[in-house]
Amino acid sequence: MPKPPAGISDRDFQAALRDFEGIVGRDWLFRSDEDVALYKDGYSPLWGEPEERVASAAVAPNSVEQVQAIVKTASRYGLPLYPISTGRNLTYGGSAPTYSGSVVVDLKRLNRILDVSERDKTCLVEPGVSYFDLYRHLRTNKIKLWIDTADPGWGGLVGNSLDRGGGYTGHDFRDHFDAHCGMEVVLPSGEVVRTGMGANTHAKTWQLFKYGMGPWVDGIFSQSNFGIVTKMGFWLMEEPEAALQVSVTVPKRRDVVPLVDALHSLMCAHTIPSQTTVASPIMNGSSDAELVRLRGSGGASDADWDKYAAARNRPFWSSTFVYYGAKKVIAAQWEHTKDRLGGIAGVQFRETASYAFPLSDEQVEAVPDKARLGIPSLNLFGSRNSPDARPSEGHIDFSPMIAPHGEELIALGDVTGKIYADLGLTPSPVAGLVFHPRTMICFHAVPTFRNAADNQRTRKLFETLVRSCADHGWPIYRIHAAFQPLGMQMYGFNDGALHRLHETLKDAIDPNGVVSPGRYGIWPKKLRGSKA
Amino acid sequence: MPKPPAGISDRDFQAALRDFEGIVGRDWLFRSDEDVALYKDGYSPLWGEPEERVASAAVAPNSVEQVQAIVKTASRYGLPLYPISTGRNLTYGGSAPTYSGSVVVDLKRLNRILDVSERDKTCLVEPGVSYFDLYRHLRTNKIKLWIDTADPGWGGLVGNSLDRGGGYTGHDFRDHFDAHCGMEVVLPSGEVVRTGMGANTHAKTWQLFKYGMGPWVDGIFSQSNFGIVTKMGFWLMEEPEAALQVSVTVPKRRDVVPLVDALHSLMCAHTIPSQTTVASPIMNGSSDAELVRLRGSGGASDADWDKYAAARNRPFWSSTFVYYGAKKVIAAQWEHTKDRLGGIAGVQFRETASYAFPLSDEQVEAVPDKARLGIPSLNLFGSRNSPDARPSEGHIDFSPMIAPHGEELIALGDVTGKIYADLGLTPSPVAGLVFHPRTMICFHAVPTFRNAADNQRTRKLFETLVRSCADHGWPIYRIHAAFQPLGMQMYGFNDGALHRLHETLKDAIDPNGVVSPGRYGIWPKKLRGSKA
Repeated sequence: MPKPPAGISDRDFQAALRDFEGIVGRDWLFRSDEDVALYKDGYSPLWGEPEERVASAAVAPNSVEQVQAIVKTASRYGLPLYPISTGRNLTYGGSAPTYSGSVVVDLKRLNRILDVSERDKTCLVEPGVSYFDLYRHLRTNKIKLWIDTADPGWGGLVGNSLDRGGGYTGHDFRDHFDAHCGMEVVLPSGEVVRTGMGANTHAKTWQLFKYGMGPWVDGIFSQSNFGIVTKMGFWLMEEPEAALQVSVTVPKRRDVVPLVDALHSLMCAHTIPSQTTVASPIMNGSSDAELVRLRGSGGASDADWDKYAAARNRPFWSSTFVYYGAKKVIAAQWEHTKDRLGGIAGVQFRETASYAFPLSDEQVEAVPDKARLGIPSLNLFGSRNSPDARPSEGHIDFSPMIAPHGEELIALGDVTGKIYADLGLTPSPVAGLVFHPRTMICFHAVPTFRNAADNQRTRKLFETLVRSCADHGWPIYRIHAAFQPLGMQMYGFNDGALHRLHETLKDAIDPNGVVSPGRYGIWPKKLRGSKA
Repeated sequence: MPKPPAGISDRDFQAALRDFEGIVGRDWLFRSDEDVALYKDGYSPLWGEPEERVASAAVAPNSVEQVQAIVKTASRYGLPLYPISTGRNLTYGGSAPTYSGSVVVDLKRLNRILDVSERDKTCLVEPGVSYFDLYRHLRTNKIKLWIDTADPGWGGLVGNSLDRGGGYTGHDFRDHFDAHCGMEVVLPSGEVVRTGMGANTHAKTWQLFKYGMGPWVDGIFSQSNFGIVTKMGFWLMEEPEAALQVSVTVPKRRDVVPLVDALHSLMCAHTIPSQTTVASPIMNGSSDAELVRLRGSGGASDADWDKYAAARNRPFWSSTFVYYGAKKVIAAQWEHTKDRLGGIAGVQFRETASYAFPLSDEQVEAVPDKARLGIPSLNLFGSRNSPDARPSEGHIDFSPMIAPHGEELIALGDVTGKIYADLGLTPSPVAGLVFHPRTMICFHAVPTFRNAADNQRTRKLFETLVRSCADHGWPIYRIHAAFQPLGMQMYGFNDGALHRLHETLKDAIDPNGVVSPGRYGIWPKKLRGSKA
């Protein structure tokens, strides 16, 4: 049987589990080794090592009242819980708890789509609702609204939003936390709070106006451990009349500077509505020795790089994005975009796909770049692994946020390329996604394995990337559970004042320390000494 | 001399003031009756009555360190403070404290524009920076960025954002809290926290990416009393190539339903970028007996209303808004808008003004609707008072948030019209501003006076409006300091669970209760019993 967490007697642990069983029924308490193993993180960088994070049991409530009862029981015994929604937070810790021995509160049965308003373009869902679930609901009922899916589509809206994940469609939807409107939260006391207009019991605007009145608390429930969110509203995108996917290429390395400046400006003006990828086609799919040398050098010149690209007859940078809307507006926006980018010598414009909505099932199936049209899939699964990297069992994401400046993208590639090379590894391709309109997020898939020796190297690589990039002003926006204390250290202004504020909030809201101890480096008082 | 707050001995009060003087110097501590009277709320609905909120003194620090020292001193004596930025929060309490006897911390000397990036389209400012200040800075330095001003322009960016005010330009800028990116806060402990990327000391993205890592705390510092914000970043709008202001009118009362549905859809798709006003031209500037009868009836029929409007040969509803961007994109957006609204019988479209930027000083002067072009002014000052209302000395705002449905706008007019009429008053004209893209905010200016008898009626009217509209699901988004406990009562789900959470946070962050006791109904523990 899995072990209870440190400091909880076996007697209390067994008593708590009996109480949980009483709350959810025998079928929904999981305590056998086989069942509990399912909550392991398949991508864990600590796989099989003593430090690997493992649960002691799992409990799956079916209602808000059951969540309340579970929290109150845990509080009585001081037993740590670890709530998950669909449990698919792969590359960031999956469904495994941050603190070993926690009981996973699996919210998969809270999977009701409580409301969808086509008129208001909103929904209200429980944490177990996946992108697939909501997409199916909209499509089955012919509701002309789009979702903004994470990759892959088996993730859940609530969990992804709370971890501040992102997507690919319109400006107002890609930042999944920003796209939420209204929450219901079970606090560690067991009390239920509704935020925003949800605190007015008559309001029809819970999913329309975020703030309500008084301090807006929603943000403290993201990337944290202050409560269990049981309902969340989201803004959805109205299906447009049409969409046009385009690509723009520029020939030289330094062309990324005017390219990104113009794209940023066009995104801020809503001329380009979708997420915009800026990647270097010459970086992909090659174990070319010269490429490896250039990338590992930590500062090869533009001339060297341009020579490399020219010899292969490929443009240095490629950007892809999508217009959504009325056909005549799209045509004007695309024309204006070409005007703005036309000054870059050698720029090339290409229309890669054009759509009129709604799509038939066959058309949906045939869309290559599904996420940009709000279609969830598993297509992107694993696609970020470089094809010439050695086989790995999984990966964890290293995603620094940089200013939307071409110089920054170049500098980041130099810095990370050298870090990989110094460790004898092939650098991950550098691509900037202009994710939120005002920052570029730069994904790197750091491979994880099922053996300790390889994982040790991975952890060294990951930690070096985190520290070096933070020193350059490029800290990351989200981090695997095993590295969350390290991640928060990179936000250390005034000797960690922000982190101390987080722990002040923790002590006030969760004095018994029952919800997700250690998540994003926030420990309850009783564990703080041993963990800090 | 003004009196110290209840519970503070005169000896402690004098000692605290001496300490404040030591911190800021003799010139910046204000304690004479004449000086302290300047911090009264000129629009107070309690003018001259014993319950009127008045300060005991004021202190004006010049640096973050001085703010820290003031907070620590106040904490030592348990002396309540009331921070203000430019002190212009008229209609919501002005510069007067929520709790009488508080010492106003006047941040007007913290008026530095710390950073403006034309490339990133961002700024970082201190609390004393007004809309006029920033506008002047941008114009003097020929920086092609726009501000989104409150009306009037003497307000400050930080205070307005923290009170969650709104403006008139592009989608990303009108919600002044949403448009902020990054804060520095002096906590009641005196400790300085930076939020978001500001917590990484090397990051160049403090004004570009809101969240950083871990719980996002910024929201709890809005409409609250958890700290003193000393720096705040904002997203600014790039000056567009051109702008086109238009108006759309529809003839019949019920036409507002398809009108608002289409406007809402077009705003969500960013086809219409600006704030959109939906008002009824027949409601304004008339003491016509039939109009008074219809408005006070609480439910006159569409037929009656349409007869009234037709007899006066005026359209029932008028909407105005502005396109910003490249000329060819604007043309396509306007054409598409006409396509979408063309189905409403009798709809009329008019282009009311057209601009190419930058404007000369003379052109700026001549712009009638300045706020929609990001130009601060005092033009709108008092303009919301109905011209046929009896003279008043000021007003307080009653601004319910409703779903963007024409039916709701009609229903709100019926409900509020009857409330005014039942009290023998002329109803305030009903207009919906599609303020945030997904809600309509409906301003009503409730007049205040310099005599107790009239103010008593005003308070009765205001309280009736607040309670009745909340019962209809239309609570307000912001409220005058004297009514904040009432306002929060309208957000009472689960017996006031959200309010209890606010007070839990208060006790944790401000255990001595020094920052703005009572603001938005949040009292520190020591005052809770006597105030609840």
